[in-house]
Amino acid sequence: MHLSTHNWMRAEPLAVTLKRIKKYGYESIEISGEPAQYDIKDTRALLKEHGIRCWGAVTLTLGERNLAAKDESQRAKSVDYVKSVITMVSELEGEIVTLVPATVGKVVPDGTEEEEWQWVVDATKECFAHAREKGVRLAIEPLNRFETYLFNRAAQALALADAVDPDCGVCLDAFHLNIEEEDIYDAIRLAGNRLFDFHVADNNRFAAGLGHLDWPKIVATLKEIGYDGALTNEFVAPVDRTPAAKYPDMVERNPVDIPPEQLKFIQDHGSSLLTEKFYDDQMRITAETILPLIK
Amino acid sequence: MHLSTHNWMRAEPLAVTLKRIKKYGYESIEISGEPAQYDIKDTRALLKEHGIRCWGAVTLTLGERNLAAKDESQRAKSVDYVKSVITMVSELEGEIVTLVPATVGKVVPDGTEEEEWQWVVDATKECFAHAREKGVRLAIEPLNRFETYLFNRAAQALALADAVDPDCGVCLDAFHLNIEEEDIYDAIRLAGNRLFDFHVADNNRFAAGLGHLDWPKIVATLKEIGYDGALTNEFVAPVDRTPAAKYPDMVERNPVDIPPEQLKFIQDHGSSLLTEKFYDDQMRITAETILPLIK
Repeated sequence: MHLSTHNWMRAEPLAVTLKRIKKYGYESIEISGEPAQYDIKDTRALLKEHGIRCWGAVTLTLGERNLAAKDESQRAKSVDYVKSVITMVSELEGEIVTLVPATVGKVVPDGTEEEEWQWVVDATKECFAHAREKGVRLAIEPLNRFETYLFNRAAQALALADAVDPDCGVCLDAFHLNIEEEDIYDAIRLAGNRLFDFHVADNNRFAAGLGHLDWPKIVATLKEIGYDGALTNEFVAPVDRTPAAKYPDMVERNPVDIPPEQLKFIQDHGSSLLTEKFYDDQMRITAETILPLIK
Repeated sequence: MHLSTHNWMRAEPLAVTLKRIKKYGYESIEISGEPAQYDIKDTRALLKEHGIRCWGAVTLTLGERNLAAKDESQRAKSVDYVKSVITMVSELEGEIVTLVPATVGKVVPDGTEEEEWQWVVDATKECFAHAREKGVRLAIEPLNRFETYLFNRAAQALALADAVDPDCGVCLDAFHLNIEEEDIYDAIRLAGNRLFDFHVADNNRFAAGLGHLDWPKIVATLKEIGYDGALTNEFVAPVDRTPAAKYPDMVERNPVDIPPEQLKFIQDHGSSLLTEKFYDDQMRITAETILPLIK
Protein backbone atom coordinates (compact mmCIF):
# COMPACT_ATOMS: atom_id res chain seq x y z
CA MET A 1 0.00 0.00 0.00
CA HIS A 2 1.07 3.56 -0.59
CA LEU A 3 -0.31 7.04 0.01
CA SER A 4 -1.96 8.92 -2.85
CA THR A 5 -4.26 11.91 -3.21
CA HIS A 6 -6.92 13.38 -5.42
CA ASN A 7 -6.41 16.97 -6.54
CA TRP A 8 -9.95 18.06 -7.52
CA MET A 9 -10.58 19.54 -4.04
CA ARG A 10 -8.55 22.71 -4.68
CA ALA A 11 -8.06 24.71 -7.86
CA GLU A 12 -4.29 25.15 -7.90
CA PRO A 13 -1.59 24.46 -10.49
CA LEU A 14 -0.59 20.79 -10.60
CA ALA A 15 3.07 21.69 -9.96
CA VAL A 16 2.08 23.32 -6.66
CA THR A 17 0.15 20.23 -5.58
CA LEU A 18 2.94 17.85 -6.57
CA LYS A 19 5.52 19.81 -4.60
CA ARG A 20 3.15 19.96 -1.64
CA ILE A 21 2.42 16.24 -1.50
CA LYS A 22 5.97 15.08 -2.18
CA LYS A 23 7.20 16.68 1.03
CA TYR A 24 4.62 14.76 3.07
CA GLY A 25 5.45 11.34 1.63
CA TYR A 26 2.73 10.86 -0.98
CA GLU A 27 3.90 8.57 -3.77
CA SER A 28 1.18 9.03 -6.37
CA ILE A 29 -1.76 11.14 -7.48
CA GLU A 30 -5.28 10.49 -8.76
CA ILE A 31 -5.60 13.29 -11.20
CA SER A 32 -8.83 15.23 -11.61
CA GLY A 33 -11.02 13.54 -14.23
CA GLU A 34 -11.06 16.48 -16.62
CA PRO A 35 -8.80 15.51 -19.54
CA ALA A 36 -9.30 18.93 -21.17
CA GLN A 37 -7.42 20.51 -18.27
CA TYR A 38 -4.22 18.53 -18.82
CA ASP A 39 -1.66 18.56 -21.59
CA ILE A 40 -0.30 15.02 -21.51
CA LYS A 41 3.27 15.86 -22.41
CA ASP A 42 3.54 18.68 -19.88
CA THR A 43 1.83 16.61 -17.19
CA ARG A 44 4.15 13.66 -17.70
CA ALA A 45 7.13 16.00 -17.42
CA LEU A 46 5.74 17.56 -14.22
CA LEU A 47 5.09 14.18 -12.62
CA LYS A 48 8.60 13.04 -13.47
CA GLU A 49 10.14 16.27 -12.23
CA HIS A 50 8.43 15.94 -8.82
CA GLY A 51 8.89 12.18 -8.47
CA ILE A 52 5.16 11.48 -8.17
CA ARG A 53 3.52 8.83 -10.35
CA CYS A 54 -0.04 8.82 -11.63
CA TRP A 55 -2.04 6.11 -9.85
CA GLY A 56 -5.20 6.95 -11.75
CA ALA A 57 -8.18 9.27 -11.85
CA VAL A 58 -11.75 9.48 -10.64
CA THR A 59 -14.50 10.42 -13.07
CA LEU A 60 -16.11 13.74 -12.18
CA THR A 61 -19.65 12.68 -13.00
CA LEU A 62 -21.15 16.18 -13.18
CA GLY A 63 -23.79 17.89 -15.25
CA GLU A 64 -25.07 15.66 -18.05
CA ARG A 65 -22.57 12.87 -17.45
CA ASN A 66 -24.60 9.78 -16.54
CA LEU A 67 -24.15 6.14 -17.60
CA ALA A 68 -27.68 5.39 -16.31
CA ALA A 69 -29.44 8.10 -18.31
CA LYS A 70 -32.61 7.28 -20.22
CA ASP A 71 -31.42 9.37 -23.16
CA GLU A 72 -29.27 7.24 -25.44
CA SER A 73 -27.14 10.09 -26.77
CA GLN A 74 -26.53 11.30 -23.22
CA ARG A 75 -25.31 7.82 -22.29
CA ALA A 76 -23.11 7.70 -25.39
CA LYS A 77 -21.55 11.07 -24.54
CA SER A 78 -21.01 9.90 -20.97
CA VAL A 79 -19.25 6.76 -22.22
CA ASP A 80 -17.05 8.96 -24.41
CA TYR A 81 -16.21 11.09 -21.39
CA VAL A 82 -15.24 8.04 -19.28
CA LYS A 83 -13.17 6.70 -22.17
CA SER A 84 -11.34 10.03 -22.36
CA VAL A 85 -10.45 9.76 -18.67
CA ILE A 86 -9.23 6.20 -19.21
CA THR A 87 -7.11 7.32 -22.17
CA MET A 88 -5.63 10.16 -20.11
CA VAL A 89 -4.71 7.78 -17.28
CA SER A 90 -3.18 5.34 -19.73
CA GLU A 91 -1.09 8.09 -21.32
CA LEU A 92 0.07 9.18 -17.87
CA GLU A 93 1.05 5.55 -17.14
CA GLY A 94 -1.62 5.24 -14.45
CA GLU A 95 -3.30 1.97 -13.44
CA ILE A 96 -6.81 2.77 -12.24
CA VAL A 97 -9.92 4.67 -13.20
CA THR A 98 -12.51 5.04 -10.47
CA LEU A 99 -15.92 5.22 -12.05
CA VAL A 100 -18.94 6.92 -10.52
CA PRO A 101 -21.67 5.67 -12.88
CA ALA A 102 -24.52 8.17 -12.28
CA THR A 103 -24.54 11.96 -12.00
CA VAL A 104 -23.40 13.17 -8.58
CA GLY A 105 -26.32 14.90 -6.86
CA LYS A 106 -28.97 13.11 -8.94
CA VAL A 107 -31.34 11.35 -6.56
CA VAL A 108 -34.28 10.34 -8.77
CA PRO A 109 -33.99 7.69 -11.53
CA ASP A 110 -34.95 8.07 -15.20
CA GLY A 111 -36.61 4.66 -15.68
CA THR A 112 -37.59 1.36 -14.10
CA GLU A 113 -35.00 -0.69 -12.21
CA GLU A 114 -34.75 -3.14 -15.13
CA GLU A 115 -34.31 -0.47 -17.82
CA GLU A 116 -31.78 1.44 -15.78
CA TRP A 117 -29.78 -1.66 -14.88
CA GLN A 118 -29.51 -2.58 -18.55
CA TRP A 119 -28.44 0.97 -19.48
CA VAL A 120 -25.77 1.20 -16.80
CA VAL A 121 -24.42 -2.33 -17.38
CA ASP A 122 -24.16 -1.83 -21.15
CA ALA A 123 -22.53 1.57 -20.81
CA THR A 124 -20.07 0.34 -18.20
CA LYS A 125 -19.18 -2.63 -20.42
CA GLU A 126 -18.19 -0.20 -23.17
CA CYS A 127 -16.00 1.72 -20.72
CA PHE A 128 -14.51 -1.53 -19.43
CA ALA A 129 -13.60 -2.72 -22.94
CA HIS A 130 -11.76 0.54 -23.55
CA ALA A 131 -10.00 0.27 -20.19
CA ARG A 132 -8.87 -3.29 -20.94
CA GLU A 133 -7.51 -2.19 -24.31
CA LYS A 134 -5.61 0.65 -22.63
CA GLY A 135 -4.28 -1.53 -19.81
CA VAL A 136 -6.19 0.38 -17.13
CA ARG A 137 -8.24 -1.28 -14.37
CA LEU A 138 -11.80 -0.02 -13.85
CA ALA A 139 -13.22 0.34 -10.31
CA ILE A 140 -16.89 1.18 -9.60
CA GLU A 141 -17.24 3.57 -6.66
CA PRO A 142 -20.39 3.67 -4.50
CA LEU A 143 -21.21 7.08 -2.99
CA ASN A 144 -23.49 8.01 -0.11
CA ARG A 145 -27.23 8.42 -0.80
CA PHE A 146 -27.08 12.21 -0.98
CA GLU A 147 -24.62 12.04 -3.87
CA THR A 148 -26.29 9.26 -5.83
CA TYR A 149 -29.41 7.12 -5.59
CA LEU A 150 -27.87 4.25 -7.55
CA PHE A 151 -24.71 2.75 -6.01
CA ASN A 152 -24.33 3.34 -2.27
CA ARG A 153 -22.87 0.11 -0.89
CA ALA A 154 -19.99 -2.25 -1.73
CA ALA A 155 -22.45 -5.04 -2.56
CA GLN A 156 -24.20 -2.83 -5.13
CA ALA A 157 -20.94 -1.79 -6.80
CA LEU A 158 -19.86 -5.43 -6.89
CA ALA A 159 -23.17 -6.35 -8.54
CA LEU A 160 -22.36 -3.95 -11.38
CA ALA A 161 -18.74 -5.13 -11.58
CA ASP A 162 -19.97 -8.75 -11.75
CA ALA A 163 -22.39 -7.88 -14.54
CA VAL A 164 -19.60 -6.19 -16.49
CA ASP A 165 -16.62 -8.55 -16.24
CA PRO A 166 -14.80 -10.67 -13.64
CA ASP A 167 -11.86 -8.28 -14.09
CA CYS A 168 -13.93 -5.21 -13.24
CA GLY A 169 -13.50 -4.07 -9.65
CA VAL A 170 -14.64 -1.57 -7.06
CA CYS A 171 -13.30 1.42 -5.19
CA LEU A 172 -14.38 2.04 -1.60
CA ASP A 173 -14.27 5.29 0.32
CA ALA A 174 -14.13 5.41 4.12
CA PHE A 175 -16.45 8.44 4.36
CA HIS A 176 -19.16 6.75 2.30
CA LEU A 177 -18.69 3.35 4.01
CA ASN A 178 -19.34 5.00 7.38
CA ILE A 179 -22.69 6.34 6.15
CA GLU A 180 -23.96 3.42 4.12
CA GLU A 181 -22.59 0.09 5.34
CA GLU A 182 -23.95 -2.04 8.15
CA ASP A 183 -20.33 -2.92 8.96
CA ILE A 184 -17.38 -1.07 7.42
CA TYR A 185 -14.95 -3.98 7.79
CA ASP A 186 -17.32 -6.58 6.36
CA ALA A 187 -17.78 -4.32 3.33
CA ILE A 188 -14.01 -4.26 2.76
CA ARG A 189 -13.88 -8.05 3.16
CA LEU A 190 -16.77 -8.44 0.73
CA ALA A 191 -14.83 -6.51 -1.91
CA GLY A 192 -11.77 -8.73 -1.31
CA ASN A 193 -9.53 -9.05 -4.33
CA ARG A 194 -11.96 -6.95 -6.38
CA LEU A 195 -10.93 -3.88 -4.38
CA PHE A 196 -8.81 -1.82 -6.79
CA ASP A 197 -8.75 1.52 -5.00
CA PHE A 198 -9.48 2.99 -1.56
CA HIS A 199 -10.36 6.63 -0.76
CA VAL A 200 -9.45 8.21 2.55
CA ALA A 201 -11.29 10.82 4.58
CA ASP A 202 -12.52 10.66 8.16
CA ASN A 203 -16.21 10.31 9.10
CA ASN A 204 -16.61 14.11 8.95
CA ARG A 205 -14.70 14.19 5.63
CA PHE A 206 -11.82 16.12 7.17
CA ALA A 207 -8.34 14.57 6.98
CA ALA A 208 -7.97 11.04 8.37
CA GLY A 209 -7.29 11.46 12.08
CA LEU A 210 -9.70 14.39 12.60
CA GLY A 211 -12.77 12.23 13.18
CA HIS A 212 -13.81 8.98 14.82
CA LEU A 213 -12.95 6.36 12.20
CA ASP A 214 -10.66 3.58 13.44
CA TRP A 215 -7.79 3.90 10.96
CA PRO A 216 -5.59 1.17 12.46
CA LYS A 217 -8.51 -1.27 12.10
CA ILE A 218 -9.37 -0.07 8.58
CA VAL A 219 -5.78 -0.47 7.38
CA ALA A 220 -5.48 -3.85 9.16
CA THR A 221 -8.60 -5.04 7.31
CA LEU A 222 -7.14 -3.84 4.00
CA LYS A 223 -3.99 -5.84 4.79
CA GLU A 224 -6.14 -8.84 5.73
CA ILE A 225 -7.68 -8.93 2.22
CA GLY A 226 -4.27 -8.45 0.63
CA TYR A 227 -4.98 -4.97 -0.73
CA ASP A 228 -1.81 -3.49 -2.16
CA GLY A 229 -2.96 -0.33 -3.93
CA ALA A 230 -3.25 3.34 -3.05
CA LEU A 231 -4.90 4.93 -0.04
CA THR A 232 -6.06 8.08 -1.76
CA ASN A 233 -6.70 11.23 0.26
CA GLU A 234 -10.05 12.87 -0.63
CA PHE A 235 -11.11 15.17 2.20
CA VAL A 236 -14.00 17.55 1.51
CA ALA A 237 -14.30 19.88 4.48
CA PRO A 238 -17.67 21.50 5.21
CA VAL A 239 -17.63 25.26 5.68
CA ASP A 240 -18.68 26.54 9.10
CA ARG A 241 -20.45 29.93 8.83
CA THR A 242 -21.32 30.24 12.53
CA PRO A 243 -19.50 31.69 15.57
CA ALA A 244 -18.60 28.06 16.44
CA ALA A 245 -16.24 27.78 13.44
CA LYS A 246 -13.11 25.79 14.29
CA TYR A 247 -11.27 26.83 11.12
CA PRO A 248 -12.28 30.45 10.45
CA ASP A 249 -9.56 30.82 7.80
CA MET A 250 -10.40 27.78 5.70
CA VAL A 251 -12.32 29.60 2.95
CA GLU A 252 -10.37 31.35 0.21
CA ARG A 253 -11.61 34.95 -0.12
CA ASN A 254 -9.47 35.87 -3.12
CA PRO A 255 -10.56 35.24 -6.72
CA VAL A 256 -9.73 31.71 -7.86
CA ASP A 257 -9.67 30.46 -11.43
CA ILE A 258 -12.08 27.52 -11.43
CA PRO A 259 -14.77 26.47 -13.95
CA PRO A 260 -18.28 27.19 -12.57
CA GLU A 261 -19.43 23.55 -12.79
CA GLN A 262 -16.45 22.44 -10.68
CA LEU A 263 -17.14 25.10 -8.08
CA LYS A 264 -20.76 23.90 -7.98
CA PHE A 265 -19.52 20.31 -7.52
CA ILE A 266 -17.44 21.40 -4.52
CA GLN A 267 -20.30 23.47 -3.07
CA ASP A 268 -22.75 20.58 -3.53
CA HIS A 269 -20.42 18.62 -1.23
CA GLY A 270 -20.88 21.27 1.47
CA SER A 271 -17.40 22.62 0.88
CA SER A 272 -15.98 25.68 -0.87
CA LEU A 273 -12.74 27.11 -2.19
CA LEU A 274 -10.05 26.37 0.38
CA THR A 275 -7.10 28.46 1.51
CA GLU A 276 -3.63 27.11 0.86
CA LYS A 277 -2.89 26.90 4.60
CA PHE A 278 -6.00 24.84 5.37
CA TYR A 279 -5.49 22.56 2.35
CA ASP A 280 -1.84 21.99 3.18
CA ASP A 281 -2.71 21.11 6.79
CA GLN A 282 -5.26 18.52 5.66
CA MET A 283 -2.70 16.95 3.29
CA ARG A 284 -0.15 16.79 6.11
CA ILE A 285 -2.53 15.39 8.74
CA THR A 286 -3.71 12.60 6.42
CA ALA A 287 -0.10 11.61 5.79
CA GLU A 288 0.73 11.69 9.51
CA THR A 289 -2.24 9.42 10.25
CA ILE A 290 -1.91 6.93 7.38
CA LEU A 291 1.81 6.56 6.68
CA PRO A 292 2.76 4.96 10.03
CA LEU A 293 0.00 2.38 9.52
CA ILE A 294 1.07 1.21 6.06
CA LYS A 295 4.82 1.09 6.60
CA MET B 1 -36.28 8.60 28.73
CA HIS B 2 -39.02 7.12 26.61
CA LEU B 3 -39.45 5.92 23.04
CA SER B 4 -41.11 8.19 20.49
CA THR B 5 -41.31 8.37 16.72
CA HIS B 6 -41.75 10.78 13.85
CA ASN B 7 -44.47 9.96 11.34
CA TRP B 8 -43.41 11.97 8.26
CA MET B 9 -41.56 8.97 6.80
CA ARG B 10 -44.72 7.21 5.56
CA ALA B 11 -47.96 8.69 4.24
CA GLU B 12 -50.52 6.71 6.23
CA PRO B 13 -53.48 7.75 8.39
CA LEU B 14 -52.44 8.83 11.89
CA ALA B 15 -54.72 6.22 13.47
CA VAL B 16 -52.82 3.45 11.66
CA THR B 17 -49.49 4.79 12.90
CA LEU B 18 -50.70 5.19 16.48
CA LYS B 19 -52.01 1.63 16.59
CA ARG B 20 -48.77 0.38 15.07
CA ILE B 21 -46.46 2.11 17.52
CA LYS B 22 -48.54 1.41 20.61
CA LYS B 23 -48.07 -2.33 20.23
CA TYR B 24 -44.26 -1.93 20.15
CA GLY B 25 -44.05 0.18 23.30
CA TYR B 26 -43.75 3.71 21.94
CA GLU B 27 -45.14 6.26 24.39
CA SER B 28 -45.28 9.41 22.27
CA ILE B 29 -45.16 10.83 18.77
CA GLU B 30 -43.45 13.77 17.07
CA ILE B 31 -46.11 14.71 14.63
CA SER B 32 -45.28 15.78 11.08
CA GLY B 33 -44.74 19.57 10.99
CA GLU B 34 -47.61 20.28 8.61
CA PRO B 35 -50.38 21.87 10.72
CA ALA B 36 -52.70 22.02 7.70
CA GLN B 37 -52.82 18.21 7.69
CA TYR B 38 -54.21 17.90 11.22
CA ASP B 39 -57.54 18.85 12.73
CA ILE B 40 -56.65 19.55 16.34
CA LYS B 41 -59.83 18.21 17.90
CA ASP B 42 -59.75 14.97 15.90
CA THR B 43 -56.03 14.52 16.51
CA ARG B 44 -56.39 15.00 20.27
CA ALA B 45 -59.16 12.42 20.30
CA LEU B 46 -57.06 9.96 18.28
CA LEU B 47 -54.05 10.37 20.55
CA LYS B 48 -56.24 9.81 23.61
CA GLU B 49 -57.95 6.81 22.06
CA HIS B 50 -54.60 5.10 21.34
CA GLY B 51 -52.88 6.10 24.57
CA ILE B 52 -50.04 7.93 22.80
CA ARG B 53 -49.10 11.47 23.81
CA CYS B 54 -47.70 14.19 21.57
CA TRP B 55 -44.08 14.84 22.48
CA GLY B 56 -43.68 17.49 19.83
CA ALA B 57 -43.01 18.07 16.14
CA VAL B 58 -40.14 18.73 13.79
CA THR B 59 -40.40 21.58 11.30
CA LEU B 60 -40.41 20.31 7.71
CA THR B 61 -38.24 23.06 6.31
CA LEU B 62 -39.09 22.53 2.64
CA GLY B 63 -39.55 24.72 -0.40
CA GLU B 64 -39.45 28.41 0.51
CA ARG B 65 -39.28 27.86 4.27
CA ASN B 66 -35.99 29.37 5.44
CA LEU B 67 -35.19 31.45 8.53
CA ALA B 68 -31.85 32.40 6.95
CA ALA B 69 -33.29 33.72 3.67
CA LYS B 70 -32.14 37.07 2.31
CA ASP B 71 -35.70 37.96 1.35
CA GLU B 72 -37.44 39.58 4.32
CA SER B 73 -40.94 38.46 3.37
CA GLN B 74 -39.69 34.90 2.89
CA ARG B 75 -38.21 35.00 6.40
CA ALA B 76 -41.45 36.41 7.79
CA LYS B 77 -43.48 33.65 6.15
CA SER B 78 -41.02 31.08 7.46
CA VAL B 79 -41.40 32.48 10.99
CA ASP B 80 -45.18 32.25 10.59
CA TYR B 81 -44.84 28.64 9.54
CA VAL B 82 -42.66 27.74 12.56
CA LYS B 83 -45.12 29.55 14.84
CA SER B 84 -47.95 27.50 13.37
CA VAL B 85 -46.06 24.29 14.19
CA ILE B 86 -45.47 25.57 17.74
CA THR B 87 -49.16 26.40 18.12
CA MET B 88 -50.15 22.96 16.86
CA VAL B 89 -47.82 21.25 19.35
CA SER B 90 -49.13 23.42 22.16
CA GLU B 91 -52.74 22.55 21.27
CA LEU B 92 -51.83 18.86 21.22
CA GLU B 93 -50.25 19.28 24.68
CA GLY B 94 -46.77 18.58 23.33
CA GLU B 95 -43.53 19.90 24.85
CA ILE B 96 -41.00 20.31 22.09
CA VAL B 97 -40.57 21.80 18.63
CA THR B 98 -37.45 20.75 16.80
CA LEU B 99 -36.40 23.55 14.49
CA VAL B 100 -34.38 23.11 11.31
CA PRO B 101 -33.55 26.75 10.54
CA ALA B 102 -32.62 26.65 6.82
CA THR B 103 -34.24 24.91 3.85
CA VAL B 104 -33.39 21.22 3.70
CA GLY B 105 -31.35 20.56 0.57
CA LYS B 106 -30.14 24.17 0.26
CA VAL B 107 -26.35 24.16 0.20
CA VAL B 108 -25.43 27.69 -0.88
CA PRO B 109 -26.06 30.76 1.32
CA ASP B 110 -27.92 33.95 0.34
CA GLY B 111 -25.57 36.46 1.95
CA THR B 112 -22.41 37.03 3.95
CA GLU B 113 -21.87 35.15 7.21
CA GLU B 114 -22.66 38.28 9.21
CA GLU B 115 -25.89 39.11 7.36
CA GLU B 116 -27.09 35.55 7.48
CA TRP B 117 -26.29 35.14 11.17
CA GLN B 118 -28.32 38.24 11.99
CA TRP B 119 -31.25 37.02 9.86
CA VAL B 120 -31.33 33.57 11.40
CA VAL B 121 -30.85 34.78 14.98
CA ASP B 122 -33.59 37.41 14.68
CA ALA B 123 -36.02 35.00 13.04
CA THR B 124 -35.34 32.28 15.60
CA LYS B 125 -35.85 34.79 18.43
CA GLU B 126 -39.34 35.48 17.08
CA CYS B 127 -40.08 31.77 16.99
CA PHE B 128 -38.65 31.35 20.49
CA ALA B 129 -40.83 34.14 21.90
CA HIS B 130 -43.91 32.43 20.48
CA ALA B 131 -42.78 29.06 21.87
CA ARG B 132 -42.27 30.54 25.35
CA GLU B 133 -45.72 32.07 25.24
CA LYS B 134 -47.22 28.72 24.24
CA GLY B 135 -45.23 26.74 26.84
CA VAL B 136 -43.28 24.81 24.23
CA ARG B 137 -39.50 24.30 24.29
CA LEU B 138 -37.58 25.08 21.11
CA ALA B 139 -34.67 22.84 20.02
CA ILE B 140 -32.35 23.71 17.10
CA GLU B 141 -31.44 20.62 15.07
CA PRO B 142 -28.20 20.40 13.07
CA LEU B 143 -28.37 18.23 9.92
CA ASN B 144 -25.61 16.70 7.85
CA ARG B 145 -23.91 18.85 5.18
CA PHE B 146 -25.92 17.42 2.30
CA GLU B 147 -29.17 18.57 3.90
CA THR B 148 -28.04 22.00 5.01
CA TYR B 149 -24.93 24.17 4.73
CA LEU B 150 -25.72 26.12 7.90
CA PHE B 151 -26.02 24.01 11.08
CA ASN B 152 -24.20 20.66 10.93
CA ARG B 153 -22.70 20.16 14.39
CA ALA B 154 -23.89 20.41 18.01
CA ALA B 155 -21.55 23.35 18.64
CA GLN B 156 -23.12 25.31 15.77
CA ALA B 157 -26.68 24.63 16.95
CA LEU B 158 -25.65 25.65 20.46
CA ALA B 159 -24.19 28.88 19.09
CA LEU B 160 -27.62 29.76 17.66
CA ALA B 161 -29.42 28.66 20.83
CA ASP B 162 -27.03 30.84 22.89
CA ALA B 163 -27.68 33.83 20.65
CA VAL B 164 -31.44 33.35 21.03
CA ASP B 165 -32.00 32.67 24.74
CA PRO B 166 -30.50 30.62 27.58
CA ASP B 167 -33.74 28.60 27.52
CA CYS B 168 -33.40 27.70 23.86
CA GLY B 169 -31.99 24.22 23.32
CA VAL B 170 -30.85 21.75 20.70
CA CYS B 171 -31.94 18.45 19.23
CA LEU B 172 -29.33 15.93 18.16
CA ASP B 173 -29.76 13.05 15.71
CA ALA B 174 -27.54 9.97 15.78
CA PHE B 175 -27.40 9.67 11.98
CA HIS B 176 -26.19 13.26 11.58
CA LEU B 177 -23.80 13.06 14.56
CA ASN B 178 -22.09 10.08 12.93
CA ILE B 179 -21.42 12.09 9.78
CA GLU B 180 -20.50 15.46 11.22
CA GLU B 181 -18.99 15.18 14.70
CA GLU B 182 -15.38 14.49 15.58
CA ASP B 183 -16.71 12.49 18.54
CA ILE B 184 -20.38 11.53 18.89
CA TYR B 185 -20.26 11.24 22.69
CA ASP B 186 -18.44 14.54 23.21
CA ALA B 187 -21.12 16.23 21.10
CA ILE B 188 -23.84 14.85 23.40
CA ARG B 189 -21.87 15.99 26.44
CA LEU B 190 -21.40 19.43 24.91
CA ALA B 191 -25.17 19.79 24.55
CA GLY B 192 -25.62 18.74 28.19
CA ASN B 193 -28.74 20.17 29.79
CA ARG B 194 -29.53 22.08 26.59
CA LEU B 195 -30.38 18.81 24.87
CA PHE B 196 -34.17 18.87 24.53
CA ASP B 197 -34.70 16.09 21.99
CA PHE B 198 -32.81 13.16 20.46
CA HIS B 199 -33.49 11.49 17.08
CA VAL B 200 -32.75 7.84 16.50
CA ALA B 201 -31.58 6.08 13.34
CA ASP B 202 -28.52 3.94 12.78
CA ASN B 203 -25.47 5.09 10.77
CA ASN B 204 -27.13 3.88 7.55
CA ARG B 205 -30.42 5.53 8.62
CA PHE B 206 -32.17 2.18 8.94
CA ALA B 207 -33.70 1.29 12.31
CA ALA B 208 -31.39 1.43 15.32
CA GLY B 209 -29.70 -1.97 15.48
CA LEU B 210 -29.28 -2.39 11.72
CA GLY B 211 -25.99 -0.52 11.49
CA HIS B 212 -22.76 0.00 13.41
CA LEU B 213 -23.68 2.69 15.95
CA ASP B 214 -23.00 1.75 19.57
CA TRP B 215 -26.48 2.18 21.08
CA PRO B 216 -25.60 1.07 24.60
CA LYS B 217 -22.86 3.72 24.68
CA ILE B 218 -25.09 6.41 23.13
CA VAL B 219 -27.87 5.79 25.66
CA ALA B 220 -25.33 5.61 28.51
CA THR B 221 -23.99 9.02 27.46
CA LEU B 222 -27.53 10.43 27.37
CA LYS B 223 -28.04 9.12 30.91
CA GLU B 224 -24.68 10.62 31.93
CA ILE B 225 -25.86 14.12 30.98
CA GLY B 226 -29.22 13.55 32.70
CA TYR B 227 -31.28 13.56 29.50
CA ASP B 228 -34.84 12.56 30.29
CA GLY B 229 -36.74 13.23 27.05
CA ALA B 230 -37.76 11.22 24.04
CA LEU B 231 -35.63 9.01 21.83
CA THR B 232 -37.48 9.65 18.61
CA ASN B 233 -37.33 7.11 15.80
CA GLU B 234 -36.58 8.72 12.42
CA PHE B 235 -35.26 6.10 10.03
CA VAL B 236 -35.02 7.06 6.34
CA ALA B 237 -34.09 3.95 4.39
CA PRO B 238 -32.33 4.34 1.03
CA VAL B 239 -33.84 2.45 -1.87
CA ASP B 240 -31.69 -0.24 -3.47
CA ARG B 241 -32.38 -0.53 -7.23
CA THR B 242 -29.69 -3.14 -7.94
CA PRO B 243 -29.61 -6.96 -7.87
CA ALA B 244 -27.90 -6.63 -4.46
CA ALA B 245 -31.10 -5.29 -2.83
CA LYS B 246 -31.55 -6.66 0.70
CA TYR B 247 -35.17 -5.50 0.98
CA PRO B 248 -36.68 -5.94 -2.49
CA ASP B 249 -40.19 -5.30 -1.16
CA MET B 250 -39.53 -2.04 0.66
CA VAL B 251 -40.90 0.29 -2.02
CA GLU B 252 -44.68 0.80 -2.24
CA ARG B 253 -45.82 0.24 -5.84
CA ASN B 254 -49.46 1.18 -5.30
CA PRO B 255 -50.70 4.77 -5.57
CA VAL B 256 -50.25 6.67 -2.30
CA ASP B 257 -51.90 9.94 -1.36
CA ILE B 258 -49.00 12.29 -0.55
CA PRO B 259 -48.39 15.95 -1.46
CA PRO B 260 -45.71 16.25 -4.18
CA GLU B 261 -43.41 18.43 -2.03
CA GLN B 262 -43.42 15.82 0.73
CA LEU B 263 -42.63 13.04 -1.74
CA LYS B 264 -39.75 15.15 -3.03
CA PHE B 265 -38.53 15.65 0.55
CA ILE B 266 -38.47 11.87 1.06
CA GLN B 267 -36.78 11.27 -2.32
CA ASP B 268 -34.17 13.96 -1.59
CA HIS B 269 -33.25 11.84 1.44
CA GLY B 270 -32.54 8.87 -0.87
CA SER B 271 -35.71 7.13 0.23
CA SER B 272 -39.13 6.61 -1.33
CA LEU B 273 -42.65 5.52 -0.45
CA LEU B 274 -42.37 2.51 1.86
CA THR B 275 -44.51 -0.61 2.09
CA GLU B 276 -46.41 -1.21 5.31
CA LYS B 277 -44.45 -4.41 6.00
CA PHE B 278 -41.06 -2.70 5.70
CA TYR B 279 -42.17 0.33 7.73
CA ASP B 280 -43.64 -1.83 10.47
CA ASP B 281 -40.43 -3.88 10.71
CA GLN B 282 -38.32 -0.73 11.11
CA MET B 283 -40.64 0.52 13.87
CA ARG B 284 -40.39 -2.84 15.66
CA ILE B 285 -36.60 -3.20 15.32
CA THR B 286 -35.99 0.30 16.71
CA ALA B 287 -38.16 -0.53 19.73
CA GLU B 288 -36.38 -3.86 20.26
CA THR B 289 -33.00 -2.11 20.19
CA ILE B 290 -33.79 0.96 22.28
CA LEU B 291 -36.37 -0.10 24.89
CA PRO B 292 -34.10 -2.53 26.80
CA LEU B 293 -31.48 0.22 27.09
CA ILE B 294 -33.75 2.88 28.61
CA LYS B 295 -35.70 0.69 31.04
